[in-house]
Amino acid sequence: MLTLDKIYQAAFTLKDVARKTDLLHAPDLLEGSELYLKTENLQVTGSFKVRGAYNKINALTPEQRAAGIIACSAGNHAQGVALAATRMGLKSVICMPDGAPISKVEATKRLGAEVVLVKGGYDDAHAYALELQERTGATFIHPFDDELVIAGQGTIGLEILDQLPSVDAVVVPVGGGGLISGVACAVKSLAPHVAVYGVQAEGAPSMLAAVRDGRVETLDTASTFADGIAVKRPGDLTFEMVEAYVDDIVTVSEDQIAAAILALIERQKLIAEGAGAVSVAAALFEKLPIAGKKAVCVVSGGNIDVNILSRVITRGLVTDGRNSMLRIALEDKPGQLQSVSEIIARCGGNVVSVQYERSDANMAISSCYLMIGMETRDFAQIQAIKDELAQNGFQIADRS
Amino acid sequence: MLTLDKIYQAAFTLKDVARKTDLLHAPDLLEGSELYLKTENLQVTGSFKVRGAYNKINALTPEQRAAGIIACSAGNHAQGVALAATRMGLKSVICMPDGAPISKVEATKRLGAEVVLVKGGYDDAHAYALELQERTGATFIHPFDDELVIAGQGTIGLEILDQLPSVDAVVVPVGGGGLISGVACAVKSLAPHVAVYGVQAEGAPSMLAAVRDGRVETLDTASTFADGIAVKRPGDLTFEMVEAYVDDIVTVSEDQIAAAILALIERQKLIAEGAGAVSVAAALFEKLPIAGKKAVCVVSGGNIDVNILSRVITRGLVTDGRNSMLRIALEDKPGQLQSVSEIIARCGGNVVSVQYERSDANMAISSCYLMIGMETRDFAQIQAIKDELAQNGFQIADRS
Repeated sequence: MLTLDKIYQAAFTLKDVARKTDLLHAPDLLEGSELYLKTENLQVTGSFKVRGAYNKINALTPEQRAAGIIACSAGNHAQGVALAATRMGLKSVICMPDGAPISKVEATKRLGAEVVLVKGGYDDAHAYALELQERTGATFIHPFDDELVIAGQGTIGLEILDQLPSVDAVVVPVGGGGLISGVACAVKSLAPHVAVYGVQAEGAPSMLAAVRDGRVETLDTASTFADGIAVKRPGDLTFEMVEAYVDDIVTVSEDQIAAAILALIERQKLIAEGAGAVSVAAALFEKLPIAGKKAVCVVSGGNIDVNILSRVITRGLVTDGRNSMLRIALEDKPGQLQSVSEIIARCGGNVVSVQYERSDANMAISSCYLMIGMETRDFAQIQAIKDELAQNGFQIADRS
Repeated sequence: MLTLDKIYQAAFTLKDVARKTDLLHAPDLLEGSELYLKTENLQVTGSFKVRGAYNKINALTPEQRAAGIIACSAGNHAQGVALAATRMGLKSVICMPDGAPISKVEATKRLGAEVVLVKGGYDDAHAYALELQERTGATFIHPFDDELVIAGQGTIGLEILDQLPSVDAVVVPVGGGGLISGVACAVKSLAPHVAVYGVQAEGAPSMLAAVRDGRVETLDTASTFADGIAVKRPGDLTFEMVEAYVDDIVTVSEDQIAAAILALIERQKLIAEGAGAVSVAAALFEKLPIAGKKAVCVVSGGNIDVNILSRVITRGLVTDGRNSMLRIALEDKPGQLQSVSEIIARCGGNVVSVQYERSDANMAISSCYLMIGMETRDFAQIQAIKDELAQNGFQIADRS
């Protein structure tokens, strides 16, 4: 199994390639905790993946290098491999499912890779990559189940111990298990008293299931917007290492992940992708025994589609009472909208959308619904607006 | 005038208070440039302001300290002063206009300050703060026109030269001028060949006007969503220093600021507020002669209201063709929505909102408009969807 010397070797190999990302103290994220963030979202390519990919490709023989590199990924691994190969002057071919977001396709091309879009999903792209590999003799770079890849990710563990020698716990996102295997191996080898926890999305708990059942198995589905950890089957090697080194694995819900992303934006000014934020979500929603302890959450990546980010923010605002929709029953006569908007303005709300609805069968013919979208400060302000409207004779039907 | 030794003294004073924020290489932001970001948005309190505030408060006599601290600010200065005073065990009172976002009020309170909400705008809060100061004998901490405050901000210049000795140009946001005065003094004293540029918002070009006219004057309005630099009148001291040290001042538009914020989110995983992003906007929109040069953009802060952030993102997505609204004239009969959605889905668009409109006076009675909001990849995809709809007999009226 992987030993510490290989991780130190990887650290040396990565010296001029990977950034030693900042460890940020984040005391504001959760009261009564001593949280730190290992900001791999600020790593080159926007995720930790370049560490493992470069360490693996760097170890190839001249013959292997000449035959080229192949990988399959719709996300961060693609960019990590592309950058690593290009930095070494090697040709890389990345197979991606044809539905991959154009931003990721473009980013991978910018990093110098040839991108092959394969019709279908991840499994189709993967099958095509293996076929291509057999045909060309290129080396296939596995995203996680490879000792050299794991050693590369493990350099994050070394950096954490260097940046915060007094750390009590490290919290790591888990998909296939490459990141946590490397980090846990480094941390437990040097500082066995430090706890290492894994976090998965509720909808894709593949490593958790493997640990529970004592063997690797394949989930039927892996459903989460944290696409970086939507993995149906963990690695064999990574499963062994998790069994050996990891203290516990917990899960977080989609809403908790979204709340963690919003908290990172507001309080830490950092963009995390879903997979990168699960560690923070586990801390915020107290899934782990880290109260009063120095815990480092690895924020593993920041490559989130901006459309999804926009939805996450909106949802978070609604959850916090800072964005709300009122549905008000109105008599269909002039001046009604004016009265309503006057009351909302007086209470400090900011109207951002207005819509009339007349087709509800339960309404009298001379009535209608007014739907008002507002920016508000908190739930107390929403309630104040509702009370004021009610006192002025308006009937409110709630809408979230 | 301020001398380099005072900035070094400030750097020593700030050793355990301010973070030496990371200097991030950002080659992806603009092709053909060597951009670096000085990430003061990741500073404690989310902006550089704590540097100047702490350096100022630290220099007070025991008598002055005992009498307490007063400041007036709706933003970053409030949090900087609050943290600085609390760290020194001193009482601080921050006057804020009562319309200040609750998030900023809460953040300032969390940092240990007493917040006084004053009815009216910034000028009213400022007048009340001065009145309070006279009554209590507390020390008023000016946000920019103070040598010790400027010296604190200047430590950013020292750090930049330490982190990138080969820097060619430094680009700095300008409001009242405290940040650029300190940075320019540090940089020009040590490395006179390095260019220092200031950037203001088009709607609040107060320092630019002062430099142009050779004297400090007061703008009638300061209108920009970059509230951190919405300053009507620059400082007297800062004006002198800008005249002495700064090579040029340029302005950027609101849309350019928004585009810079979105670029920082997508490519650098960083949240900047409007004021913090103007330096990057000036680089992206080629307002400065920095092509091929090593330029450091100071990202001065990240305290942006999330509702505004959400709007900035949406606007950026529309500008990029990744979010769009189609207005389609329909015969008002069953099955029409199904045909339209089938076509959109086939072309890879993702419908996010649907609305019917029947009240247009120009429409035949049996017709209506269908408004469809879509997430798309780019303008080419939008055009493909439009073409396909047109080929199927649908009439499209553009809506941005």
